[in-house]
Amino acid sequence: MGIPFLKGHGTENDFVVLPDLDASLDLTAERVRALCDRRRGLGADGVLRVVRAKAVQDAPSDVDDDTWFMDYRNADGSIAEMCGNGVRLFARYLVESGLERASEFTVGSRAGARPVEVRPDGDVTVHMGPVRVYGRSVASVGGAEHSGVAVDVGNPHLVCVLDHGLDALDLTVQPGFDATLFPNGVNVEFAVPAAPDHVRMRVHERGVGETRSCGTGTVAVAAAVLRLAGAPDGRVTVDVPGGRVRVGIDGGRGTLTGPAVFVARGELDSVWWHGLAGHGQVGGVE
Amino acid sequence: MGIPFLKGHGTENDFVVLPDLDASLDLTAERVRALCDRRRGLGADGVLRVVRAKAVQDAPSDVDDDTWFMDYRNADGSIAEMCGNGVRLFARYLVESGLERASEFTVGSRAGARPVEVRPDGDVTVHMGPVRVYGRSVASVGGAEHSGVAVDVGNPHLVCVLDHGLDALDLTVQPGFDATLFPNGVNVEFAVPAAPDHVRMRVHERGVGETRSCGTGTVAVAAAVLRLAGAPDGRVTVDVPGGRVRVGIDGGRGTLTGPAVFVARGELDSVWWHGLAGHGQVGGVE
Repeated sequence: MGIPFLKGHGTENDFVVLPDLDASLDLTAERVRALCDRRRGLGADGVLRVVRAKAVQDAPSDVDDDTWFMDYRNADGSIAEMCGNGVRLFARYLVESGLERASEFTVGSRAGARPVEVRPDGDVTVHMGPVRVYGRSVASVGGAEHSGVAVDVGNPHLVCVLDHGLDALDLTVQPGFDATLFPNGVNVEFAVPAAPDHVRMRVHERGVGETRSCGTGTVAVAAAVLRLAGAPDGRVTVDVPGGRVRVGIDGGRGTLTGPAVFVARGELDSVWWHGLAGHGQVGGVE
Repeated sequence: MGIPFLKGHGTENDFVVLPDLDASLDLTAERVRALCDRRRGLGADGVLRVVRAKAVQDAPSDVDDDTWFMDYRNADGSIAEMCGNGVRLFARYLVESGLERASEFTVGSRAGARPVEVRPDGDVTVHMGPVRVYGRSVASVGGAEHSGVAVDVGNPHLVCVLDHGLDALDLTVQPGFDATLFPNGVNVEFAVPAAPDHVRMRVHERGVGETRSCGTGTVAVAAAVLRLAGAPDGRVTVDVPGGRVRVGIDGGRGTLTGPAVFVARGELDSVWWHGLAGHGQVGGVE
């Protein structure tokens, strides 16, 4: 008997979903790393364990005990708070598995309770919380400087809106930024308008590099574009390298709507799983 | 109802196995590419379709009609002949699924019929065919020249045995080689002896870059090391970055023994699969 799993992605930010309804799974950092390894495991950007909030020691107090909680682990085995792309896959899993009967409900996360809506076409809307445009700064790429807008979406962003030249940018290296304004680093987005309510963007995530999608980055870009147009509230379609999402900004709060795609489901090989260090085993890492 | 699959690896060369026992699967290049994509699909170095030889138009004449045939596709959708790591996973699947009752049998491939043995511990031995050491040449890395031995294992190899410095080599770029001796390119191996019958190696595969394992490369290294020691027949343990294999050379023919690890099994999502272009669909690529 293997360990049930699903594999899928949101705009090519990909995850292994591990249903752990009775909180019995011995999910060590070593098992997360092996699972996310793209050659010796299944491969993913992270693991989303499905468990009741009451089984999670560090669940925030605004999350009810019986809420389904997204226990998110990064590929390196560390614990993370939230992921705007992962939560869509998580929410769709809850509806398709029958764990949630309604199309609108709340998902628990370490960043707090997140209202979501699973649409009939399978797209999912997530309430992303407060979005704050708070200053101007500059990003430099390959010797060229680009003026940008600082945006806080729970994490820091620097959004540079360009006229053209998006595809030619070299994002293989960290763009330069003002370390006084962003002492903990910053996610840097570059966007080119395709229409008044539609932009294409690329993103360099701090500590990661260029990625195919960044959920909070799309919200930051939409907030910046609306602010620069003089209308802070509105809706923007955002194309990232991994797909298309829609962002709404309303009264300083953001919603993110986008696809959640399931690729496969099945069981992890139990010999393989039990060969990786669990908590009670010699070589356990937690 | 989804499409059955297994995911696994041989020394971290990883594959999706697609059982297609009645040859009904519409496996287009587009579907192979999506399946092997490490974010929008499952992710793998290649796909191993399991089908009877009689259903494969380009099966070689030395493969009997009813032999299980490894229809190997590269991650880019192209067709390939053989893979020393993939065939171990393929053979183990045949035994574990009950499609083969004996532990020794023949696997069909575009390179011909390959005798295999699935051992009780799950390791698999594959007969790799003729191995020929045929000359000397030089590989250059970062301005330094390394003398090497040319070895033919069905494909060309240049094996350089070093005293030390294996870990420090920069294999992010193609090592320099003599294009007169290797007009179609060459796989370049660097090996350091750990004991008379044990070497550590790294490999740069032509057209790919450095990889965690190369089946024919391990056979080439063993043949070169034995030849340089003055004893062309023998057994060598070979450590690659992705694990450990054992190579035997006997009368100019090689055997490769190594692990075959299953990580997961289940079903591909049928909505996802049918959303990719099949042969009869608009946008089909074959």
